[in-house]
Amino acid sequence: MTSPDTAPVPVAADPACVRSIGVVGGGQLARMMIPAAIELDLPLVVLATAETESAARVSADTLLGRHDDPAAVRALAERCDALTFDHEHVPQEILHGIEDDALSAVRPGSAALVHAQDKLVMRDRLTRLGHPCPRWWEVRDAAELDAAIAAAGGRAVVKTPRGGYDGHGVRIVETAADASDWIADLGADGALLVEELVDFRRELSAQVARRPDGASAAYPVVQSTQRDSICFEVIAPAPGLDEERQQEIQGLARAIAEDLGVVGMLAVELFETVDGRVLVNELAMRPHNTGHWSMDGAVTGQFEQHLRAVASRALGDPSPKAPWTVMVNLLGGASEDLAAGAAAAMEADAGVKVHLYGKSVRPGRKVGHVTVAGDDLEDVRARAHRAERLIIGRADAAGAPDETAGPESGTAPRPRTAPQDPTDPRSAA
Amino acid sequence: MTSPDTAPVPVAADPACVRSIGVVGGGQLARMMIPAAIELDLPLVVLATAETESAARVSADTLLGRHDDPAAVRALAERCDALTFDHEHVPQEILHGIEDDALSAVRPGSAALVHAQDKLVMRDRLTRLGHPCPRWWEVRDAAELDAAIAAAGGRAVVKTPRGGYDGHGVRIVETAADASDWIADLGADGALLVEELVDFRRELSAQVARRPDGASAAYPVVQSTQRDSICFEVIAPAPGLDEERQQEIQGLARAIAEDLGVVGMLAVELFETVDGRVLVNELAMRPHNTGHWSMDGAVTGQFEQHLRAVASRALGDPSPKAPWTVMVNLLGGASEDLAAGAAAAMEADAGVKVHLYGKSVRPGRKVGHVTVAGDDLEDVRARAHRAERLIIGRADAAGAPDETAGPESGTAPRPRTAPQDPTDPRSAA
Ligand SMILES: Nc1ncnc2c1ncn2[C@@H]1O[C@H](COP(=O)(O)OP(=O)(O)OP(=O)(O)O)[C@@H](O)[C@H]1O
Ligand SMILES: Nc1ncnc2c1ncn2[C@@H]1O[C@H](COP(=O)(O)OP(=O)(O)OP(=O)(O)O)[C@@H](O)[C@H]1O
Ligand SMILES: [Mg+2]
Ligand SMILES: [Mg+2]
Repeated sequence: MTSPDTAPVPVAADPACVRSIGVVGGGQLARMMIPAAIELDLPLVVLATAETESAARVSADTLLGRHDDPAAVRALAERCDALTFDHEHVPQEILHGIEDDALSAVRPGSAALVHAQDKLVMRDRLTRLGHPCPRWWEVRDAAELDAAIAAAGGRAVVKTPRGGYDGHGVRIVETAADASDWIADLGADGALLVEELVDFRRELSAQVARRPDGASAAYPVVQSTQRDSICFEVIAPAPGLDEERQQEIQGLARAIAEDLGVVGMLAVELFETVDGRVLVNELAMRPHNTGHWSMDGAVTGQFEQHLRAVASRALGDPSPKAPWTVMVNLLGGASEDLAAGAAAAMEADAGVKVHLYGKSVRPGRKVGHVTVAGDDLEDVRARAHRAERLIIGRADAAGAPDETAGPESGTAPRPRTAPQDPTDPRSAA
Repeated sequence: MTSPDTAPVPVAADPACVRSIGVVGGGQLARMMIPAAIELDLPLVVLATAETESAARVSADTLLGRHDDPAAVRALAERCDALTFDHEHVPQEILHGIEDDALSAVRPGSAALVHAQDKLVMRDRLTRLGHPCPRWWEVRDAAELDAAIAAAGGRAVVKTPRGGYDGHGVRIVETAADASDWIADLGADGALLVEELVDFRRELSAQVARRPDGASAAYPVVQSTQRDSICFEVIAPAPGLDEERQQEIQGLARAIAEDLGVVGMLAVELFETVDGRVLVNELAMRPHNTGHWSMDGAVTGQFEQHLRAVASRALGDPSPKAPWTVMVNLLGGASEDLAAGAAAAMEADAGVKVHLYGKSVRPGRKVGHVTVAGDDLEDVRARAHRAERLIIGRADAAGAPDETAGPESGTAPRPRTAPQDPTDPRSAA
């Protein structure tokens, strides 16, 4: 099922070859880099805030410290040839310092990463580059917000430009009063992003890997479904996407990676609109939840691919190994005991791949994921969702995928009242 | 390509469920268990002799100590629910002590493991069970050895019953004088194993996983080719094996696992004779070199499967994910710099999967392996062998698979003069 170019390309030993990688952040994305690093024999050092964090539990080499503590991040950089990220919350100033002092290669670099850190910077840059976005406005106060809402047609999506994840920092509003708390919190230079409420048929995600020298590899475009604004189900490849549209979207993702100078994995979250357009939602420059399927479903999983890109190695074949792979997230639910649930899911279906992150269960928290691959999409989906229910401990384990699992027309983010917690960026994925 | 039984089997939380596993030995087999343990969130503790051993380099939890030091192995057992092995060199008395004191579940147990530790015990037991073996003799002195050689037809294979690996402890002899050193070393109760020199068409390997409750899963039978008595190439599934013969061999492996009470992975090394019979060569009760293909090529890799069996979890689907998967070992050669070689191999072929063990290079030492999967066997083989040559640094990297790589009629072990090194069981695989 793979079709690599098999012509031998003799390559001399690269003296600039990266021999060790530091990962800022100890969440599940850092954790899932570890198996890939072991197989490639590429030493990883994880900067985590506690020994109990997801990646720190299984890392052979952990530094304790915060992602926003310059001394901690610099100490990591000093130990490694290249620095990469579990999440996008490392302050720009810290990265600038490391880049200026050439302590280690920052991959992706600060100039690229800012577009995954700040949604206003991202919207502005993509718009100037001519990449398709929803209509958007930058607002600084209630009057500007009301004007934007009116321009958007009476309802709009407001986003805090920085620090959001899993829908924290995203809210549907009809009047500025619906975001009065965020407006009150704006500092002197602060602004909010307002977007039209996109009438989407479904959400897609396009992942590409890019090396420092510009070589890139594009994964099949996938369909992702969020539940309560959290990624819940991913189908690879996206059903019903014709080859031409697929290549167009892969081209868009490659162009963004090239335009912004991304190194490593880039995920482009997209809306497919009811009227057939494709718009960029946001960017992530790291392995992404919508790419977890590739660990089991592609010749080269996204975690291995990210490390290969960051280490300036040749990129691997991103081809799928089966006609369909479905990933379903494990979001904390009724059961505290994931091990027992996982045992039940594996007992029920020998083909399900269970990935647990070593995190304690809290309602809605991402604690793992499952994948199932096969020839028949509906069968594969049903099996993946059943496994999810068995592990999470929901009562309806024997039933069909629940109603939130399918592609839905016009799914919109639910208003969130819980404030974002900038001290817990570890849920990023 | 998977065909699991998808009927849901509700399973209650198992109070006896294994929640942590200790691995005796810090070689590459222990190392490759770690990624699987991370994904299953099953804590592993590795007993290694040095921080620099293959598994110790990447393990988050390492105890330092020797496999033949009762205190060290008991300390490991006390920390874990179940004990398993990187190699088969742990003395029986140590295992008996742990079993008697119920410090932890020993999997496989001592009574099973002895058949992988002592080739005379294995031959005797398999013969009594009626499983097919080469003709064999137990000899205690030169006169008995000469008699056995004569009975075998003038040439025979002599084996030290314990401590052998990678052909150390295996020698072709024509007279007792050819093994005079081994005879001189025999203690009062000592004996050597003599076998007829089997005229084999090729070597096969059958792997099964078995749980404590007897549930088992059989992998496709593979073909393995040794070079200088070390496993070099594995083709999965074995070419030209008809379905009936495959099931017969899988049945043999399952029967041996059941008869001996194996828990975990069992590899049955086999000869397919020129006259069409299948004979057991030897047994390994752990992940085995002939199963490395499954990490990339099967729904459930052998390391994950071993942990699932040892932890009393449901076994995973052993089905292959591609028509052919070829594994080639990386045996230390000209180049010290595996990272550069691996970079070149990945540059030449995006579909090759490289696994490095973090070991320093010594001639002939197993330092890693590669796999390639695909539809066309000759293409897949050529790609895997080219990758091997690029990594190992052999000059003929652009050529075809070398002459030792193909199935050969009558391949026999080369006489070995290097004495076995019982203090370095870490090469076991
Ligand atoms: N302009 C929009 N129109 C309609 N729906 C939107 C819009 N923007 C966001 N959404 C919905 O809200 C979800 C979360 O938005 P977004 O991806 O910007 O937030 P986030 O908190 O950064 O999420 P992530 O966890 O992906 O980082 C989207 O996946 C989509 O379902
Ligand atoms: N009776 C025999 N007749 C012919 N060849 C044999 C015989 N026994 C062993 N060999 C050859 O020698 C190789 C090594 O033998 P064996 O597997 O018993 O040794 P080992 O040192 O335990 O190897 P391993 O590394 O598999 O543990 C076999 O793979 C086979 O090629
Ligand atoms: Mg998003
Ligand atoms: Mg052998």
